[in-house]
Amino acid sequence: MTATTVVPHVVILGAGFGGLSAARELASAPVRVTLVDRHNYHLFQPLLYQVASAGLEPADIAYAVRGIFQRAPRVSVHAGEVTGVDWERRQLHFDDDSTLSFDYLIIAAGAVTATFGIPGVDEHAFGLKSVADAVALRSHVLGRFELADADRSAIDRGALTFVVVGGGPTGVELAGALAELFRTVLVKDYPSLDVDRARVVLVEATDTLLGAFHPSLREHALSELRARGVEVRLGTAVEKVTADEVQLSDGSAIATQTLVWAAGVRANPLADRLGVEQTRGGRIVVDEHLQVPGHPGVYAVGDIAASLDRAGNPLPQLAPVAMQGARHAARQIRRSLAGRPPVPFRYRDKGTMATIGRHAAVAQLPLGIRVRGFPAWLAWLFLHLLLLVGFRNRLSVLLNWAWSYITYDRAQRLIFAPEAYGGRRPPSAGPSATAR
Amino acid sequence: MTATTVVPHVVILGAGFGGLSAARELASAPVRVTLVDRHNYHLFQPLLYQVASAGLEPADIAYAVRGIFQRAPRVSVHAGEVTGVDWERRQLHFDDDSTLSFDYLIIAAGAVTATFGIPGVDEHAFGLKSVADAVALRSHVLGRFELADADRSAIDRGALTFVVVGGGPTGVELAGALAELFRTVLVKDYPSLDVDRARVVLVEATDTLLGAFHPSLREHALSELRARGVEVRLGTAVEKVTADEVQLSDGSAIATQTLVWAAGVRANPLADRLGVEQTRGGRIVVDEHLQVPGHPGVYAVGDIAASLDRAGNPLPQLAPVAMQGARHAARQIRRSLAGRPPVPFRYRDKGTMATIGRHAAVAQLPLGIRVRGFPAWLAWLFLHLLLLVGFRNRLSVLLNWAWSYITYDRAQRLIFAPEAYGGRRPPSAGPSATAR
Repeated sequence: MTATTVVPHVVILGAGFGGLSAARELASAPVRVTLVDRHNYHLFQPLLYQVASAGLEPADIAYAVRGIFQRAPRVSVHAGEVTGVDWERRQLHFDDDSTLSFDYLIIAAGAVTATFGIPGVDEHAFGLKSVADAVALRSHVLGRFELADADRSAIDRGALTFVVVGGGPTGVELAGALAELFRTVLVKDYPSLDVDRARVVLVEATDTLLGAFHPSLREHALSELRARGVEVRLGTAVEKVTADEVQLSDGSAIATQTLVWAAGVRANPLADRLGVEQTRGGRIVVDEHLQVPGHPGVYAVGDIAASLDRAGNPLPQLAPVAMQGARHAARQIRRSLAGRPPVPFRYRDKGTMATIGRHAAVAQLPLGIRVRGFPAWLAWLFLHLLLLVGFRNRLSVLLNWAWSYITYDRAQRLIFAPEAYGGRRPPSAGPSATAR
Repeated sequence: MTATTVVPHVVILGAGFGGLSAARELASAPVRVTLVDRHNYHLFQPLLYQVASAGLEPADIAYAVRGIFQRAPRVSVHAGEVTGVDWERRQLHFDDDSTLSFDYLIIAAGAVTATFGIPGVDEHAFGLKSVADAVALRSHVLGRFELADADRSAIDRGALTFVVVGGGPTGVELAGALAELFRTVLVKDYPSLDVDRARVVLVEATDTLLGAFHPSLREHALSELRARGVEVRLGTAVEKVTADEVQLSDGSAIATQTLVWAAGVRANPLADRLGVEQTRGGRIVVDEHLQVPGHPGVYAVGDIAASLDRAGNPLPQLAPVAMQGARHAARQIRRSLAGRPPVPFRYRDKGTMATIGRHAAVAQLPLGIRVRGFPAWLAWLFLHLLLLVGFRNRLSVLLNWAWSYITYDRAQRLIFAPEAYGGRRPPSAGPSATAR
């Protein structure tokens, strides 16, 4: 790109919910913006579990970043991975040895799966944070059914036992979606297999699911999951994972070839390479303006930052926090350029929701409003369609949802090579014949 | 599955155009049918090049085989790879050491990329026969543009030079689609890049493109491709391929990081493991009933078989030949069960077509009818929609086509394999993987 010395250069790290919001806010500002991401697309992570459970395709929830900013001449896109920063020169270093100078920096690189050092999780568990994760999990789950269909004894060895660890929204939604996939779709695909023997086990270390929700909604989610055949084990932690079983804190073990780790995230490791103060989970400490202390013009927002609420507690790692924080940081840059003082960030809680399956969801809205069941499910569908980027993706997701709803079918129950999507195949994964 | 001694068992190898046609024909016959494939989906290979050029998603052209036969209780599906056959016992051996007995066998395992031992092709070329091939090629092509955008000097080293080898329908369609992707979509994505420097070179060893078409259609395809900026090199063979250049038979060399091999296919290597007579390209010799000589009740159809026309020449390796041959073989099995004598196979040529791009295609129909330009393009679109399996895939492909047509956008320009930035294709994705 042609460098100009007059126009300030804002670099945004990460094209997730935060990075996109910041870039949009700055597209009309008197600055040059460079949006940096490892991938060339924005990924709508809240629907990744539907890719994993064969309801959607990756392209439905991914959107080319360059496409979003085609009509924003001052926003450019750079594909690459940041390896470090030279704070003196205000310069970023990339893995291909190139550099990029900035006047302002917004760090919005998100979070990654945290395994807390529990033995075997790194080697044997599936994550659910990337397209490669979701495609690998989908292929593996379907591969387990092929295996069991060819060899019934594999069921006794846990081929059809699927353990999801973590009772937050991701774990609840995935467990519900897998149970629905088995009971409504795969039961027809495998007529000679006793699909009722397929188990979905949801393991949660605390004594409740959806800890961030009101107790009445937690209860509803729990009973809806159980009604759909999900075995929920509360107050149970994972001690160790191997290729064919998981050992739990109550001394029991479950034979399984599939363990999904949705039990926690930590800040993107990029945060560790910046030489800035971090809190628990690696999150970057920021002041009330979302600025990184000691680094004027440098902001951190979203999952990678530890922004605080009015009571001084860290805000949850949710998309709305990232989006509001990013817009705030972008506005502080505009204020700074206009010579105006910064204003503190105030998060506006607009509620949170989770879906369990067909006609079942819970939604916690502001002013203590709580919705569950069919209306919450409809609201969930509508809101997620609205939040997706791009008319074409909305239309495609709507088409897929309508198709699944009407036909009880999942068009995406296809076993693709996870390697093609950048995924490694875990050592416990399926027969090479079906996975290739 | 429960074995019964009364009902004859028909095993079909391959869920391509041939295998599906045979299974459908036999679904209502008094037999048990087992359809065997490495993958759990039927792949509509003629549109793979659109996945590679970011126009469609794999799920649009793949359809779960179990879904197709959900309402056919006597058709079951087996995912696995055949390693050999015991003709005495009429038993197939699989890579997981399992076996499957048959009374009748239809071999419809198709073809794989043939590289003819040309140095470097196996290691450096992209194939276009599988989902993994297409996703890897798409990611690689888009990755080249990211590379060139970050470092202009990469263009001189061939980052934006894309060489397609083979002037048959696959090569012509891919070359046209890539040129269109660059000139209508990527030119907007990379405003600071001189996208006119991106070259598509189509190399063909004979002195004409689309050799199976009438000369007037060949001429039309050639001039349409050239009008769209494709450099066509006729009468030129590939001598050697390296990671950064291709050496041609005229002594010249082209600096390129992307070579697509669409210059030939050979029979699936399964044919080599059966101990049956083969012709050039490994195709299985069959008699006029499509039966394998010396093996009563064993048929070979489609790309893996050398079925002959009335003049004694081998029929082309095209989907209609596979579909008609498979239906014929299935009917011979029905006749055999009814105690009736076999009848010889007669291929009915219904024509062939190829598309060059927007509003441009050629179609050669029976009775010497030739169509080109806009009407041929419309016919091509309509026919391919019709041939796709499943209403949902048709709807999704139609949506994607309409979207691309109206907006000059390609929703699927997503880089899923991170290796794509690195320059080398993932080792699992090329021709060697498809030949497995």
